Amino acid sequence: MKSRLVRISSRKIGAAPGSLVHVGEQKVEKTRISVIEYDAESLSEQILESADEHFPCPAPTKTQWLNIDGIHQVEVLERCGHCFGLHALVTEDILNTAHRPKFEEHEDFCFLVLKMLFFADESRQIETEQVSIILRDNMVASFQEKEGDVFDGVRQRLRSGRGRIRKLGPDYLTYALVDSVVDSYFLVLEKVGDQIEELEEELVDRPTPETLHKIHNLKKEMIMLRKSVWPLREVISSLQRSESPLITTGTDIFFRDVYDHTIQVVDTVETFRDMLSGMLDLYLSSISNRMNEVMKVLTIMATIFIPLTFFAGIYGMNFAYIPELQWRWGYGAFWVVILILAGAMVCFFKKKKWL
Amino acid sequence: MKSRLVRISSRKIGAAPGSLVHVGEQKVEKTRISVIEYDAESLSEQILESADEHFPCPAPTKTQWLNIDGIHQVEVLERCGHCFGLHALVTEDILNTAHRPKFEEHEDFCFLVLKMLFFADESRQIETEQVSIILRDNMVASFQEKEGDVFDGVRQRLRSGRGRIRKLGPDYLTYALVDSVVDSYFLVLEKVGDQIEELEEELVDRPTPETLHKIHNLKKEMIMLRKSVWPLREVISSLQRSESPLITTGTDIFFRDVYDHTIQVVDTVETFRDMLSGMLDLYLSSISNRMNEVMKVLTIMATIFIPLTFFAGIYGMNFAYIPELQWRWGYGAFWVVILILAGAMVCFFKKKKWL
Amino acid sequence: MKSRLVRISSRKIGAAPGSLVHVGEQKVEKTRISVIEYDAESLSEQILESADEHFPCPAPTKTQWLNIDGIHQVEVLERCGHCFGLHALVTEDILNTAHRPKFEEHEDFCFLVLKMLFFADESRQIETEQVSIILRDNMVASFQEKEGDVFDGVRQRLRSGRGRIRKLGPDYLTYALVDSVVDSYFLVLEKVGDQIEELEEELVDRPTPETLHKIHNLKKEMIMLRKSVWPLREVISSLQRSESPLITTGTDIFFRDVYDHTIQVVDTVETFRDMLSGMLDLYLSSISNRMNEVMKVLTIMATIFIPLTFFAGIYGMNFAYIPELQWRWGYGAFWVVILILAGAMVCFFKKKKWL
Amino acid sequence: MKSRLVRISSRKIGAAPGSLVHVGEQKVEKTRISVIEYDAESLSEQILESADEHFPCPAPTKTQWLNIDGIHQVEVLERCGHCFGLHALVTEDILNTAHRPKFEEHEDFCFLVLKMLFFADESRQIETEQVSIILRDNMVASFQEKEGDVFDGVRQRLRSGRGRIRKLGPDYLTYALVDSVVDSYFLVLEKVGDQIEELEEELVDRPTPETLHKIHNLKKEMIMLRKSVWPLREVISSLQRSESPLITTGTDIFFRDVYDHTIQVVDTVETFRDMLSGMLDLYLSSISNRMNEVMKVLTIMATIFIPLTFFAGIYGMNFAYIPELQWRWGYGAFWVVILILAGAMVCFFKKKKWL
Amino acid sequence: MKSRLVRISSRKIGAAPGSLVHVGEQKVEKTRISVIEYDAESLSEQILESADEHFPCPAPTKTQWLNIDGIHQVEVLERCGHCFGLHALVTEDILNTAHRPKFEEHEDFCFLVLKMLFFADESRQIETEQVSIILRDNMVASFQEKEGDVFDGVRQRLRSGRGRIRKLGPDYLTYALVDSVVDSYFLVLEKVGDQIEELEEELVDRPTPETLHKIHNLKKEMIMLRKSVWPLREVISSLQRSESPLITTGTDIFFRDVYDHTIQVVDTVETFRDMLSGMLDLYLSSISNRMNEVMKVLTIMATIFIPLTFFAGIYGMNFAYIPELQWRWGYGAFWVVILILAGAMVCFFKKKKWL
Repeated sequence: MKSRLVRISSRKIGAAPGSLVHVGEQKVEKTRISVIEYDAESLSEQILESADEHFPCPAPTKTQWLNIDGIHQVEVLERCGHCFGLHALVTEDILNTAHRPKFEEHEDFCFLVLKMLFFADESRQIETEQVSIILRDNMVASFQEKEGDVFDGVRQRLRSGRGRIRKLGPDYLTYALVDSVVDSYFLVLEKVGDQIEELEEELVDRPTPETLHKIHNLKKEMIMLRKSVWPLREVISSLQRSESPLITTGTDIFFRDVYDHTIQVVDTVETFRDMLSGMLDLYLSSISNRMNEVMKVLTIMATIFIPLTFFAGIYGMNFAYIPELQWRWGYGAFWVVILILAGAMVCFFKKKKWL
Repeated sequence: MKSRLVRISSRKIGAAPGSLVHVGEQKVEKTRISVIEYDAESLSEQILESADEHFPCPAPTKTQWLNIDGIHQVEVLERCGHCFGLHALVTEDILNTAHRPKFEEHEDFCFLVLKMLFFADESRQIETEQVSIILRDNMVASFQEKEGDVFDGVRQRLRSGRGRIRKLGPDYLTYALVDSVVDSYFLVLEKVGDQIEELEEELVDRPTPETLHKIHNLKKEMIMLRKSVWPLREVISSLQRSESPLITTGTDIFFRDVYDHTIQVVDTVETFRDMLSGMLDLYLSSISNRMNEVMKVLTIMATIFIPLTFFAGIYGMNFAYIPELQWRWGYGAFWVVILILAGAMVCFFKKKKWL
Repeated sequence: MKSRLVRISSRKIGAAPGSLVHVGEQKVEKTRISVIEYDAESLSEQILESADEHFPCPAPTKTQWLNIDGIHQVEVLERCGHCFGLHALVTEDILNTAHRPKFEEHEDFCFLVLKMLFFADESRQIETEQVSIILRDNMVASFQEKEGDVFDGVRQRLRSGRGRIRKLGPDYLTYALVDSVVDSYFLVLEKVGDQIEELEEELVDRPTPETLHKIHNLKKEMIMLRKSVWPLREVISSLQRSESPLITTGTDIFFRDVYDHTIQVVDTVETFRDMLSGMLDLYLSSISNRMNEVMKVLTIMATIFIPLTFFAGIYGMNFAYIPELQWRWGYGAFWVVILILAGAMVCFFKKKKWL
Repeated sequence: MKSRLVRISSRKIGAAPGSLVHVGEQKVEKTRISVIEYDAESLSEQILESADEHFPCPAPTKTQWLNIDGIHQVEVLERCGHCFGLHALVTEDILNTAHRPKFEEHEDFCFLVLKMLFFADESRQIETEQVSIILRDNMVASFQEKEGDVFDGVRQRLRSGRGRIRKLGPDYLTYALVDSVVDSYFLVLEKVGDQIEELEEELVDRPTPETLHKIHNLKKEMIMLRKSVWPLREVISSLQRSESPLITTGTDIFFRDVYDHTIQVVDTVETFRDMLSGMLDLYLSSISNRMNEVMKVLTIMATIFIPLTFFAGIYGMNFAYIPELQWRWGYGAFWVVILILAGAMVCFFKKKKWL
Repeated sequence: MKSRLVRISSRKIGAAPGSLVHVGEQKVEKTRISVIEYDAESLSEQILESADEHFPCPAPTKTQWLNIDGIHQVEVLERCGHCFGLHALVTEDILNTAHRPKFEEHEDFCFLVLKMLFFADESRQIETEQVSIILRDNMVASFQEKEGDVFDGVRQRLRSGRGRIRKLGPDYLTYALVDSVVDSYFLVLEKVGDQIEELEEELVDRPTPETLHKIHNLKKEMIMLRKSVWPLREVISSLQRSESPLITTGTDIFFRDVYDHTIQVVDTVETFRDMLSGMLDLYLSSISNRMNEVMKVLTIMATIFIPLTFFAGIYGMNFAYIPELQWRWGYGAFWVVILILAGAMVCFFKKKKWL
C-alpha cells in the first residue's frame, strides 16, 4: 500500500532534469510494441519482436498507432523519444509513473499524461496505471505500464473498419483512447457505488467497528481518486479548448463529449465523498445511541436494585434490638415495601420514557 | 435505490462514441409522439399512431412542437436525429438518461438536457426524469422518459390561445417548457421543506434513532438534488447569455426570469443542507444531554446507597465482639447516621445542581 | 413558521409567466398610496383615498415619490404597471413576496427588489418584508407589504427641506430608500448581537439544554439572514456599478457608501455564524466535561465502597469456622484494614487528579 | 465586551447620509492636533493649542503632516473636512469608528481607513483603534481615536532627518504610517502566538475546563481579528495597484513590501485559526480519553467485586440447611474460589488491554 | 518550538523600511562565500576567505554563481546589495528569514525567496531554511542560512560538465537551484507519508492517547507546511509566466516542469491533510467504540449480579419468621431461581447482540 499513497521518487531527487530514470514498479517483464497503421481502406498490424527493431516509418497518407506496453526499459523509451523528436523532459515524464495528469502542447506534437483506474476486487482498493499519449502529425504513440484491455475496444473498432474511426485521423484516435480511459473511471465508480450501498445497508442493519473501518477506507480511496480526477478535468478541459493545428475542428465536439463525462466523474466523486461523510456521522450517532441504550439498562437495573439491596442489608444487621425483626408480619411487610419501591421506580422510568 | 444513486452505464463502456444505446430503465411501453402546430391564429394537434409514420413537415410560418414520450426505442430516436439533422453524439445524449444537465449551441439548433424532479410520497425520495429539448428554426422537439403532466400547463395555454405564447415563436415555447421544469423543482422543495419542519418538531419533542435516520435520508436527498441543481444553474445561465440567433431579443427577459428562479432553487437547496446539518448537530447534542441525565440518575442513586449498604453490611458482620450491636439505641443511632449521610449526599448534589 | 422558511408558491406553478398573482400573506386590509412631489423649493403631499383614483402626473421639473403600502390588491398593481410602463414580469415580481433581492436595468426604468428586516422580540425571529422600488426619469415608486416606519426618516428629511435630498433627483431618493432598508439590517444585527452575548454568558455560567435550543435557533436565523444578505450585496454592488443614465454621477459616491454598509452587514452575519458554531462546540464540550465529572463521582464512590462492602460481606458469612470472627480485636482490625484500603483508594484518585 | 463585538450605531440609523455624528466611545478628553512640516533640509513642529485655531497653510515646497488625536469633537472634524475639501461622506466615515477598513480614491485626495490593533494583557482581548488617513497633494492628515505611540517611530525618523523619509513626499509618509499600523498587527500576533503555545502545553500536561474556555476565547479573538485583517488586505492591495497621481512611481515598491507583510498577517491568522481548531479537537479527544479511563477503572472494580460480593452474600444467608457452611475447610475454600475468580477477571482485563 | 511557529520579528517593528536587520537565529559562525564561474568550456571555483574581499567581477561571456552561506552578518549582505545594485528593501528581505516565499521582477534583476524544508528525525518536525536567489544578466547569487547539501547536486553537475547546465546561462542555473529546493519538499513529504502510514497501522492495531498526539502533531506540521507550499506555488507560477528578458525562451519548459512538481507537492499536502483529518475521526470513533465495549461489560456484570445479590441479601435477613429459610430444599431452590434469573439475563443480552 505504501508505494500507492505516496509514490514520490527519492531515487530521482538531485538528478539533472531530463535524466531518464524509470519511477514506479516494473509491471511487465519486457516492453512490447505493437504498431497499427491504417487509413479508411486498409489496416496493417505488426508487433515488434524486440525493442531494438526500427520503428516503421508511417506512410504519409496513413495514420500510425504505436502502443508501447511496459515503460521500465529506459533505453527503449529513449529511442522512442529520439525517434519522435521529444524533449528530454517529456520522455522523463513518460517514465515517471508518479506524474500528475497533464496536457502539453509542443511545437509539433501534443503530450498527454492520464491515469487509468482499476478496482482491485480482493484488496478493495483503486489501482492506477499511467498512460502517456503523444499525438503527432500522422501518428499517435501510447505508453502503458502493462498490457491491458482498456484499449481493446478501440482496436476492435479499428479492425472492424466500421464507424468513423478509420476515416478520421490521429486526433480522433487520440480522442478514442482518452474516451476509453475516462470510461474506466465509470467502471470504478460503479463498483464504489455498489460498495457504498452495501455499507449503507450494513450501517442501518448491523453496524460494527468493521463497518467504520470500511467507511474510512472508502473515504481514503475517494481522497486518492479525487487527486486523479481533478487534474483529469483540467487536462480534458485544456484539450477541448486547445487550438493546436493537430486537433481538427470536427474532433472538437467529441472532446466536448469526453469533457462532459469527466465532469460527471468529478461530480460523482464529490457526491460519494459527501455521502461517506454522512455515513460516518450516522455511524457515530449510532454508537452514541447504543451507548445511551446500554447506559439506560445499567441505570434502570442499578437504580431499582441498589436501594432494595440496602433495605435487605438493613434487616441482615445483627443489632441486639431491631424491633421490626420480631414482628409477626415483618417479612411480609418488607416484601410489600420493597415491591412498592420497585414499582415507583418503574413508574419513574416510564415517565422519563426510558422504558 | 441502486440505479438511482449511481446510474452509470457499464453497458455502454467500450462502445464507439455516438453509438445509440438507451441508458436507463424503460418507463413506458411504447414511444408516443404528439405534434402541435400553431401560429397566433390557429392550432392543430396530432398524435402519431406509430413511430414509423413520417413526421409532418412544419409549415414555414408556423411553430411546431413535437413531444416524444418514451425514449427507449432507439430506432425512433435515430429517425428523429436524422430528421432534425442532429449529430450522433446529441442523439446519444438524448438516449442516455444518466446525462448531466447541459446546454449546447450547434450550428442550426440548440440542445438542452434538463432533469424534472418529482417527490415520491411513499418512498420519501426525489425521483428524476430526463427531458431533452431541441430548439430549431421553427420547431421545438422535447423528449421525456414517460408521459407526464409537467407540460400540461403549456399545452393548455397553447390551446386557449390567450397570453403571448401563441404569438411568440419556438424560443418562447422553449422558455415555457424550461419554466415548467424549473417549477417542478419548487414543488419538490416545498415538500422537502415540509418534511424538514416536521422533523424539526420531532427533534424538539421526541427525538428517536428513527429521527436520525430521517435526517440522514433527507440529507442524502439534498446531496442528490444538489447534483442536479448546480448544473441546472449553469445551463440556464448559458441559455440566458446565449447569442444564438434562434433566441430572439424579446425572450431574453423571460430567460432572465427563469434564471432568477433557478438561483432561488440553488439557494434553497443550500439552506436546506445547512439546516439539516444543524439538525444533525442538535440531535447529537440531545443524545449527549440525555446520556448526561441518565448518568446523573445512576450516579445519584449509586452514590447515596452504596455507602449506606456498606454500613448495613458492617453491622451484618458476625464478629464475636462488635460493641455497637449491643447498645440499647444502636439500631436507632444507625438510622440517624444513615439519614444524615444520605442528607449530606443530597445537599452535595443540590450544590452541584444535579438535582 | 412554515411559510417563513420555505415560502414557495405552489399556487403559481403552472401559471403563465407574467400572470399577476399575489404570493404571500396579506398584511394590511387596503392598499394605501401616498404621493410626495417635490423640488428644491416646494413639496406637496397627497394620499390617494382609493386605489381607483388616477395617479397624478408628475410635473416635469419635480420629483415624484409614490409609496404603495399593501400589494395584495392585484388590480392596483396591474394599473401601476400599465401606468409606469412596466413589463408584466416586473409586476409579477413585485407581487411575489418570496422573490430574491435583485436589481434589473430596463430601458427606461430601474427595478429593485429588497428585503426589510425586523426582529420580532416575542418570537425571537427575524421577519422580512419585501420592498420593490421602481426608479424612472422623474419619479420613484416604492411598494411595501404593509405600512411601516422605515421610510419615515426619509419623509421627514424631505419635509424639512434641509440637507441635499430636496435638491437632488429621484436617484438620490432611491439611494435614501435603499439606505433606510440597509439600516434596518443593522438594527436586527444589533439585537442578534445582544442575544449572542446573553447566550455566551449563559453558556459559561449555567448551560442547560434550553441554551442549546437557543443557540440552534439563532443559528437557523443566521442561515435565513444569510439567504437575504448575500443577494443584497450583489444587488447593491450592481446598483453601484450601474451605468444607467437614470443614476447621475454625483450619486455614485452615496451608493458606494451603502455598499460599504452592506459589506459590513455580510461580514457581521458571517462572524455571527462563526461565533454561534463556536458556541455550539463549547456547549458540547461543556456537556462532555460535566459527564466526565459525573462519571468521576460515581467511579470514586463505587470504587471506594464496593470493595469495602465485599469485605463486610465476607464477615457476614455464616461459615461454621471463620477464625477472624473469634479474635478479640477482630472488629477493630477490620476497621483498620478498611480505612487503610479506603485511604489507598483516595491516594490513587489524588494521584490521578480525579480529586 | 458588548460594544467591541457588535459596534453598530443605532444612534445613526435614520439620519441623513453625511450627517456628522461620532460613533464609538470617547477615548480622550480633548482633540489634540499636531502639525509637522518638513522638507529635506528643515522640519518644524507645532501643536495647535485649541482646535479653534486656523490650520497652518502648508508651504508649497514642503510636506505637511497633520495628526489629529481624538475624533469625538464633531465640530473640529467638520472644520477639517471643509479645510481639506472632503466630501461629507468621508468626514462621516472618519467619525464612525465602527467603519470597515477601506481605500477610496477621490479626485484630489486619497482616503484610507485602517484599524490599529493592541493586545490588552489583562483582559486577554484584542482591542482596535481606527486610524483614518487623508493623502493630498502636499499634505497628509491622520486621525486617531486617542494619542498613541504607534506613529512615534515615524516622528522619530522625521526628526532625525536620516533615511529617505525627509527626502520623499507625502505618499512616502503615508506608506510609513500604514507600515506602522501593519507592524502593530505583528505585535498582536506574536502575543497570540505565545498564548497558543502556552495553551498547547497546558493541553498536553493538564487540560482543565478552563483550558477549553481559553481556547474558545482565543478562537473568538481570531474571528474578530479576521474581520479586520481580510479587508486590510484588500485595502493595501488596492493601494498598491492604485494609479492615483498622488502616489509616485518610486513609492510603489514600498507599498508592495507592506502588501507582503499584510499577506503574512492574513496567513498567520488563518494558521492560528486552524491550530486552534486542532486544539479544540484535541481537547475533546482528551476528555473522551479520560472518560474512557474513568469508565475502565469503574468497570474493573465493579466487575471484579460485584460477583465476589454476591458470593459473600450467598454464604451470609440464613437458610437452615446450607451444607457448605458446615464444612471444615468451607471458609478456606471460599477464599480460594474467590481469588481464582478475581484472578480470572484480571486476566480477562489484561487480555482486553484495559490494564 | 516557539520561534518556529510564529517567527515574527518584534525587534524590527518601528524600524525604517529598508533598515538592514537580521531576523532569525544565527545558524553558522561565519558567512562563507563561494564563487563558481563557468562557460561551456571551463569552470573555476573560488572561496572568499573573508567577507571583506572584493567580489570578483564576472567575465562578460561567463556565468558566475555566488553562493553565500550564513546571512547574519549584516555588513556582508549590505556590501552584496551595493555590489549587485539591489534596492534596500530587497536586501532587507534577504536578511529577514521570516519572509514569505515571493518572486519579484526588478528592472535589471529578478529576486526569489524560497523555503527549503528538512525533516528533523529526532523532533519529528519539519524545519525550514530560507533561500534567496538573485538572477542578473550574467550571474546568480544565492543566499542560504547555513551551509547545506541541497545545492551539491547542482555543483556536481556543473563540475562534471555533462548535461546542458554548462551550456545554458544563469536562468538555467536559477532553474536548477529552484528545482533542488522543490526536490527537498518531496523528501519531506515522503517521510511524512511514511509516518502517516505507520500511524494508520497503529490506529488500527493499538490506538493509544499517544497516537492521538502524534496525529495532532502531524496535522500541525501540515498546517505549517501548507503555509510554505501555497506561496511557493504562486512563486513558481509567476516565475513560469514571467516575461523578464533575463529568462530565455528555452528555459520556459524547465520552469513549467518545476511548476508541475510544485502542484504535485500542493496536492500531496492537501491529501495528507484530508487523510489526517480522516484518521482523527477514526481515532475518535475508536474511542467511542471502546467506551461502548467497556460500558457493555460493566452493564452485563452489574445487571446480572445486582439482582442476584439482592436475593442473597433477602435471605440473609434476620426476620424472626422467614418461611423459605426453614424449607428443606430452600437453599437448592434458591440456586435454581438464581441460575434461571442469570440465564434469562444472558438471553436478554444475547438478543440485544451485546454478547
